[in-house]
Amino acid sequence: MTLYPPATIRNGRHFYRLRVYYEDTDAGGVVYHATYLRMAERARTEALRDLDVPHAEMTRQFGLIFMVRRVNLDYLAPARLDDSLVVVTQPLAIRAASVELRQSFFLARQEDGEGGVLDVERPLAVADVRLACVRLADFRPGRVPERWRAALAALASESGVSQELA
Amino acid sequence: MTLYPPATIRNGRHFYRLRVYYEDTDAGGVVYHATYLRMAERARTEALRDLDVPHAEMTRQFGLIFMVRRVNLDYLAPARLDDSLVVVTQPLAIRAASVELRQSFFLARQEDGEGGVLDVERPLAVADVRLACVRLADFRPGRVPERWRAALAALASESGVSQELA
Amino acid sequence: MTLYPPATIRNGRHFYRLRVYYEDTDAGGVVYHATYLRMAERARTEALRDLDVPHAEMTRQFGLIFMVRRVNLDYLAPARLDDSLVVVTQPLAIRAASVELRQSFFLARQEDGEGGVLDVERPLAVADVRLACVRLADFRPGRVPERWRAALAALASESGVSQELA
Amino acid sequence: MTLYPPATIRNGRHFYRLRVYYEDTDAGGVVYHATYLRMAERARTEALRDLDVPHAEMTRQFGLIFMVRRVNLDYLAPARLDDSLVVVTQPLAIRAASVELRQSFFLARQEDGEGGVLDVERPLAVADVRLACVRLADFRPGRVPERWRAALAALASESGVSQELA
Repeated sequence: MTLYPPATIRNGRHFYRLRVYYEDTDAGGVVYHATYLRMAERARTEALRDLDVPHAEMTRQFGLIFMVRRVNLDYLAPARLDDSLVVVTQPLAIRAASVELRQSFFLARQEDGEGGVLDVERPLAVADVRLACVRLADFRPGRVPERWRAALAALASESGVSQELA
Repeated sequence: MTLYPPATIRNGRHFYRLRVYYEDTDAGGVVYHATYLRMAERARTEALRDLDVPHAEMTRQFGLIFMVRRVNLDYLAPARLDDSLVVVTQPLAIRAASVELRQSFFLARQEDGEGGVLDVERPLAVADVRLACVRLADFRPGRVPERWRAALAALASESGVSQELA
Repeated sequence: MTLYPPATIRNGRHFYRLRVYYEDTDAGGVVYHATYLRMAERARTEALRDLDVPHAEMTRQFGLIFMVRRVNLDYLAPARLDDSLVVVTQPLAIRAASVELRQSFFLARQEDGEGGVLDVERPLAVADVRLACVRLADFRPGRVPERWRAALAALASESGVSQELA
Repeated sequence: MTLYPPATIRNGRHFYRLRVYYEDTDAGGVVYHATYLRMAERARTEALRDLDVPHAEMTRQFGLIFMVRRVNLDYLAPARLDDSLVVVTQPLAIRAASVELRQSFFLARQEDGEGGVLDVERPLAVADVRLACVRLADFRPGRVPERWRAALAALASESGVSQELA
């Protein structure tokens, strides 16, 4: 158990909260498995914004995008309609032309006040995502621009996660 | 009650069959309401292909696309997981720079053999869709190219629907 | 032009902000037309929460859900990747077993500080949505429970919109 | 290079053809990465039907569903609007309460006549999917019913894939 912060970034992790709507669910009564990839994309986009290195700016300035190259996604427990979820995003590795992130999905136990409680031992799902940095024009590899690399590296070193996991 | 044809076009109507998968449903146990618009898009694309005037060809040759401008969509009865549906598409009006289609969703009663039975008195949903013909580059209106207009007009006259409905 | 409030409800209207991600767009470079229905659903859910009459509570207490029965949706101008949008939801009519809402989509011009500016004369899209109140068990009509009716009626009278439009 | 069959099952593999529509794409001009999971679900559902062991029947008879537990998904080359794709599904392993499938996505080079050509050396994407057999009521593990196990085992042995890969 740990308190998760109302602030979006802490200890090398980015926290993104969202709610489950009908659009996210399926006839099994739970969140449809592909929905996690959509949620992960939203969380990554907001993480880059909150780190002050928006994805859209990388595209405008350099004609580069982060493109999903690989996803390893484990589903551990279902999420349901109206659940409040938190996506925790942390860098696993930052390479010349690619980035690896771990994005974990948690049920947020309470919503009010200055944050809430996440049971960090029990994620609902964990996605390891490899993003290739490619040119929008032809999808050929490009170097991650320095500003983006620096921001992600700072986040990684803050979490000590690169030592644990990369 | 009417037999619907195994052929894709008959009596001025295009028939497109699809099945309902988990991806199409929501936690209410039925097809999510926005899914009908996705299904309708698939059916329109196949209708243009089956009429020998593919949408992609209009884009390649003229830089034009059909863009949805208005949708009036009535939901009459729910569809469920694993249902076999038929989308019936017919032109309501063909104008200089736009087209109106009616797209009705039916439950297909049986799948085998030479077609199946549609209860045409009882659609699950009916969508009237106005498509503007616009330039892909800037979304400004463009004239519907002659070949596309002719194909849609032929379909409309075959159904007699332009007299009834346009 | 009008300032839109940081608060979520003002003048009988509910304001819901969201951002456009890749998941919302299509190969035309703009928001896919069915995405507006997904966004509208999110906005309605949050509107009911912010009015203190959550949809999920209506289901738990009464076994009732609001089910989309009809949508009239006009697309006036495209939204694009990374745009910040505001969905403005207002009641048009509240009936025994159904509710009508207008949900308008606006581009939010600035994001920082105490709110932002909406060009209320120029929505990107306008959806009129009829919601039937039905029993989750069998989708048969049910009366809108008093607490939900009262909250929506209060919102409608605050906006004066029921006189203008219903 | 290999001919792929007009028949849906051959050599221990199930072939499912689909086309890419606007709904499947994103503003990068290619198929959105989460779309592959939706396509894979459709292909799995049709594979079970074509093997004469429909998923829906397993639910009706035994109250069991196959639920996605893990996905490892590699994106190798983008697919685009209007592309014709083939999803090739083959079993990797069949266990007491779970099944592993490989689902590979190929560009179909030609559509007419008796099938088409797949460049089997160059998939666009490859998904390894672990499905847990669980009870719909509470998502607890259940044994894969004998009829389903036998059908999948027969497919696996036909492909010789269980020796190669499981």
